[in-house]
Amino acid sequence: MISGAIPYVKGHGTQNDFVVIPDPDGGLDLTPTLVAAICNRHIGLGADGLLRVVRSAKDGDAVDVADEAEWFMDYRNADGSVSEMCGNGVRVFVRYLAESGLLDPVDTEPVAVATRGGIKYVTFEGDGTLTVDMGVAELLRQKAQVLVQTPTGVRTATGVLTPNPHAVVSVNDLAEAGPLIVAPDVLPPGVFPDDVNVEFVVDRGPAHIEMRVWERGVGETRSCGTGACAAAFVAMLRDNSPAETPYRVDVPGGRLTVTKRSDGHLLLNGPAELVASGALRADWVRAHSPA
Amino acid sequence: MISGAIPYVKGHGTQNDFVVIPDPDGGLDLTPTLVAAICNRHIGLGADGLLRVVRSAKDGDAVDVADEAEWFMDYRNADGSVSEMCGNGVRVFVRYLAESGLLDPVDTEPVAVATRGGIKYVTFEGDGTLTVDMGVAELLRQKAQVLVQTPTGVRTATGVLTPNPHAVVSVNDLAEAGPLIVAPDVLPPGVFPDDVNVEFVVDRGPAHIEMRVWERGVGETRSCGTGACAAAFVAMLRDNSPAETPYRVDVPGGRLTVTKRSDGHLLLNGPAELVASGALRADWVRAHSPA
Repeated sequence: MISGAIPYVKGHGTQNDFVVIPDPDGGLDLTPTLVAAICNRHIGLGADGLLRVVRSAKDGDAVDVADEAEWFMDYRNADGSVSEMCGNGVRVFVRYLAESGLLDPVDTEPVAVATRGGIKYVTFEGDGTLTVDMGVAELLRQKAQVLVQTPTGVRTATGVLTPNPHAVVSVNDLAEAGPLIVAPDVLPPGVFPDDVNVEFVVDRGPAHIEMRVWERGVGETRSCGTGACAAAFVAMLRDNSPAETPYRVDVPGGRLTVTKRSDGHLLLNGPAELVASGALRADWVRAHSPA
Repeated sequence: MISGAIPYVKGHGTQNDFVVIPDPDGGLDLTPTLVAAICNRHIGLGADGLLRVVRSAKDGDAVDVADEAEWFMDYRNADGSVSEMCGNGVRVFVRYLAESGLLDPVDTEPVAVATRGGIKYVTFEGDGTLTVDMGVAELLRQKAQVLVQTPTGVRTATGVLTPNPHAVVSVNDLAEAGPLIVAPDVLPPGVFPDDVNVEFVVDRGPAHIEMRVWERGVGETRSCGTGACAAAFVAMLRDNSPAETPYRVDVPGGRLTVTKRSDGHLLLNGPAELVASGALRADWVRAHSPA
C-alpha cells in the first residue's frame, strides 16, 4: 500500500491526455484500482491513460531491454488495465523525459523507449513536435469483406493491424458515422475476435484526410495514434503514393502527420504538451488504495 | 496577461469537480479563455467549474461584504462564464480554506463565504462532511402546468426556484429519463425564460429519494447541489413532512442530505474531498492567455 503523496505531470498529445507518474527507480505499486481512480475525471485527476516512468532496469517487464532503452513506458488504460503502446502517449512520455532532465544529451536521438509493444524510437523535430516510429502496418488477411453498420447504412471497411486491429471506413461526410454513442457494429461476427477500433475517414485534399475514431473499450475519442496510422496507411495504398509522402491526418483534437518510410515503417508526427505538475494527496491515495 | 505558473488544488463534492485557484490578495486575471482551457478535460486540468479564492476586501464583487465574509468564492463555469453559486463547490471551497490554514479558529463557525448569490454559511460536521445553508426555495408561480418531454412520454413537473430554476419530475424508474444526451424539452415554451435544470426523481423509501439531473448549459452531471435541494423540497411538500426532517438524496456521484430548517432554509449536507495540488505550467498558461 502506498502511504505518501504521489507526484505527477499532466500532458496531452492532440487532446489524448495522460497522467505521467515518475517512478524512476521502480517500486511504486500502482494497483488497477488506484490507476482507475487517478484517471477518473470526477473523483481523481482525469485522463485517457496513465504513463508510469521507470528505468527499464528497474522493472521486470522491461529489464531484458535495459541496454537498448533506458526508460520503460508502463502504459495503463483509464480503467486500470495494462496496455501495450500509445502513439500519442509515447510523445508525451518523451517530452516529459526531456523536460525533467532524464534524457542523455540530444546526440543520443532518436530516444529509445521500452514499451510492452516493443522498443519505440522517438525524434524531436525542429518545430517542437515529435515523431515516433510506429513500425509496419498490414492489411487484415481474410476472405469476407469487413462491413461497418452506421446510422446511414452499411459501409465496406478495410481491416488493418498496426498491430492492434482497425476497421477503416471511407465516408463522404464525417457526420455519416452518426453520434457514435455506442460501438459501431462490425461484420461479419468474429472477424475481429479481440474487438476493433473503427476510423471514419474523409478526404480533404491530396495526402490530407480527416477522421473520427471509435476506440474499443473507450468510445469516441479526440485522437488515436494507431488509428491515424491505419487510416493514412489505407489512403496511401489507395493513392499508390510513393514512400516518404507525408499524409496529414486531422483528428478532433488536432493534427497528426503519418509518413511511410521506404522500409514500410509508419512515422507518426504530432505535438506533445505538458500542462501542469503536482502531487496527489496522501490521504486521497490511501482512500483509493486496497487495504 | 499572466506570465507565471498558477498554483491550484483539485477537489470534488459528490463527483462535482473543481479546480481551486488561490488568489488571496487578488490581481490574478483569469480570463474566460484561460478558465475554459483550465476546465477543458483534454487540453487542461479538467473540471466542472473553477473556484477562485480571494479575500472579499480585495475583489470589487465582494468588497461591500468584506466585514461579514472574509473570503469570496469567485465561481466560474467550465465555459469561462461567471456563475452565482454552487452548493457542491462551496463545500470544496471551505474545505480548501480549512486545509490551507486560511480560516480563523473553529469557534468562528459557521464559515461565512461571499458569493455572487449572497453570503453562504458553511458548517463542519463531526463525520467529516460539510453543511451549507442554501437559503429558501419557492415554488414557481404560474398558471400553466410545467411539462417535461421524455422518451417514454410527457410528464408533469414542479417548477422550483432555489433561486435558480428547476423542473422536478417524479418517475417510477430513473431509466424513464432516457439517455439524456440532449436537453429535455420543457413546456410550455417560455415558462423558463433563462432555461432550466431538470431533475428526474424516484422514491427509495421514507425521506429518501434518488435522482438524475440535467444541468442547463452542461448536460447530465454526477451531482447538482441546488437540484438536490429542489428535488428534496418537492418531496417534503408532498410528504407534508415536519421541519428538521433530513431527506437523503442519492445522486450518481454519491449521497447528499437536505434538511428544511423551521425558518424554511434548506441545509445541504455532503462530502468535500481534495484530490491533488500542483501548478499549471507558465508556458501552458501563456499559450492559453489572450495576447
